[in-house]
Amino acid sequence: MYNCLIAQSGGPTSVINSSVVGLVDENKKSKTFENVYAGLNGIEGILNENIINLSQCDEKKLNVFKLTPSSGLGSCRYKMKDFNKDESEYKRIFSIFNKLDIKAFFYIGGNDSMDTVSKLSEYAKNKNIDVKIIGIPKTIDNDLPITDHTPGFGSAAKFISTVTLETYLDSSVYINNGIFILETMGRDAGWLAASSCLATLNKKPIVDFIYLPEVPFNEEKFIKDVEKKYKEQNHVYIVASEGLKDNTGNFLSTLKTTGCHDNFGHAQLGGVGNYLKNLILNKEITTRVKSLELGVLQRCAMHISSSTDVEEAYNAGAAAIKLYLKGSSGYMVAIKRLNGNLYNTEFFSVKACDVANNVKYVPKDFINAEGNGVNEKAYNYIKPLVAGNVELFYENDLIDYSIFTK
Amino acid sequence: MYNCLIAQSGGPTSVINSSVVGLVDENKKSKTFENVYAGLNGIEGILNENIINLSQCDEKKLNVFKLTPSSGLGSCRYKMKDFNKDESEYKRIFSIFNKLDIKAFFYIGGNDSMDTVSKLSEYAKNKNIDVKIIGIPKTIDNDLPITDHTPGFGSAAKFISTVTLETYLDSSVYINNGIFILETMGRDAGWLAASSCLATLNKKPIVDFIYLPEVPFNEEKFIKDVEKKYKEQNHVYIVASEGLKDNTGNFLSTLKTTGCHDNFGHAQLGGVGNYLKNLILNKEITTRVKSLELGVLQRCAMHISSSTDVEEAYNAGAAAIKLYLKGSSGYMVAIKRLNGNLYNTEFFSVKACDVANNVKYVPKDFINAEGNGVNEKAYNYIKPLVAGNVELFYENDLIDYSIFTK
Repeated sequence: MYNCLIAQSGGPTSVINSSVVGLVDENKKSKTFENVYAGLNGIEGILNENIINLSQCDEKKLNVFKLTPSSGLGSCRYKMKDFNKDESEYKRIFSIFNKLDIKAFFYIGGNDSMDTVSKLSEYAKNKNIDVKIIGIPKTIDNDLPITDHTPGFGSAAKFISTVTLETYLDSSVYINNGIFILETMGRDAGWLAASSCLATLNKKPIVDFIYLPEVPFNEEKFIKDVEKKYKEQNHVYIVASEGLKDNTGNFLSTLKTTGCHDNFGHAQLGGVGNYLKNLILNKEITTRVKSLELGVLQRCAMHISSSTDVEEAYNAGAAAIKLYLKGSSGYMVAIKRLNGNLYNTEFFSVKACDVANNVKYVPKDFINAEGNGVNEKAYNYIKPLVAGNVELFYENDLIDYSIFTK
Repeated sequence: MYNCLIAQSGGPTSVINSSVVGLVDENKKSKTFENVYAGLNGIEGILNENIINLSQCDEKKLNVFKLTPSSGLGSCRYKMKDFNKDESEYKRIFSIFNKLDIKAFFYIGGNDSMDTVSKLSEYAKNKNIDVKIIGIPKTIDNDLPITDHTPGFGSAAKFISTVTLETYLDSSVYINNGIFILETMGRDAGWLAASSCLATLNKKPIVDFIYLPEVPFNEEKFIKDVEKKYKEQNHVYIVASEGLKDNTGNFLSTLKTTGCHDNFGHAQLGGVGNYLKNLILNKEITTRVKSLELGVLQRCAMHISSSTDVEEAYNAGAAAIKLYLKGSSGYMVAIKRLNGNLYNTEFFSVKACDVANNVKYVPKDFINAEGNGVNEKAYNYIKPLVAGNVELFYENDLIDYSIFTK
């Protein structure tokens, strides 16, 4: 009998480990592979033969691992070279696979990781190597094309909409309140910022303005909107995506920063909240302006995760085993939302190369006419993804999480 | 029959509304007052006769209000003048009390609010006015003297220790990890930063260094500690209080800021995380340094509140009614921790003037010898305060909160 290997890549999410456990459990049921090995720190760790055997792990640890946020197998940001130019890494990877009798490699990741899935499967096909390469989606950014949404987004959206409501309440306790700016992640797509539309009080949405990277940021319009709303309400609540760009396509947040880049050439963002805060201060609308950057909390706040999201991530892991059994390689598990009044989904598969390096933006018809908010379509799309609470494990009154690294 | 009035003051907490509901419920049981009125926006709103009747509020709304974070009656930061110099505000307040047949005024707040309780009760005594003034403690800072701890702190500590663990996991997924700095609130006392000691993985504490305002910050020692730990672990996790001061007593965070002050003359802080980040970058220990400021989330994250804290806040409201029935005025409800293996508390009362403008620091014997962390005594003191989860109300899959302002 043969084995399989699973690994995680890219930025963590709250539910990325659920997919690992879903795959391990499905393998136990289907007896597809003798062992599920895990590569620690993604492809980078696999190249160093940093590999463990999850099939030898006891069930209790796996149950806790399923509800542990962040990449518990470790992660990497590693761009594989074009094998036509340099195949040394490919040779090394497939010789390690061969040594461990690995017939399937499952890679949990986002756009960049699907690039790796696509390249590895292409290479295997070219060399007639019988190893299937299958992608499992994850990203809080929800920016993968074709799939209805990505595991990880629902929990991030739940955290964001919850703290939007809580910080709204916090920011409106005085007679004279100021302006509150919440900065979310979202380099290219505004899904995370858009999810703040779920925050409601007395069934009314509480966010005054939501700014998405999909709409070129117009400083004059922003000032005008905020000034007017502040006069009306003595309080303005703004949500802004870190990826806001001006009308020439430059990130607002890099206009005043030095502009570091990661290995994929993405600009390291941050600071849009403070940028907007300074616009308001310079215009002297009020001196009471607070900006809060949610930062990495968005991708690890398992304590307020969505059970819908956790279960979908788990089932996506199981679906990957089924995709293998169909003989697929170079494909990613994807989610289809079924028609009907109740939220319901099924899995299908898409070519990893069609996902890699592509982006799913918030569609125009989810954005309001003014370009400073989202509409009911966005609300209806996001809302089912945050449903349901998760009961975490506690040990001696403290949350119990479990990882395989360190 | 007579009425009473309750109001909230100062910075919000997650459980400040629980105390209001505890008082309303105890009044229903004890039939002490005909009506519980609430002043919106504290003393500032009372001066404007912005007063509602909570006894006419339906039970469902009150139940939701009990589990709603942030000052749901509105708040203020209003320092009352010395009545020997100007008694106009005092006259106005007691004439409003008289008009509404108010025999007791309950004020939920921290140090500054107890100053108001003390002044109002002194004035009433001097003028032979039969209105009792009673304080109910609240502050996430846990810096009120005499009381074992303050309602609001346990939930803030639970949020901080939870996200410490979650961001620790997030910050350690790569082969080469960097240095993560979590900045907590805490202007004078380091209780909030100290609460990160509860974050454990495999029963081991995960925070490498905790910096408290109680220990003068030593730049050289900091650099040395961090450099050594980074070499050992390739990852350092640091928690720092916003109120860190150098050995001359200057706030680190104001060394490079303009230094705004609020109405009480407190410096507006923020930015310690970035200050430490720059120290590390300048020393070239690593370029991978992330700093996250938790900001107001610490005082409004009801979604991960402590049920111990919620119930104590609720019972503190009830205890205030009992204090009134004893004939007390100018006192604050305080919490005594009873001896024994199991956590258990009872209420007693302290003079508001002994609380006002005093600070309870993290004691020396809670801090480690190196001055860069806390010990088991701190752990044992804080841990019982975070115990137990709260089931919030949900409406149509979204959290349901309810307030009386807006």
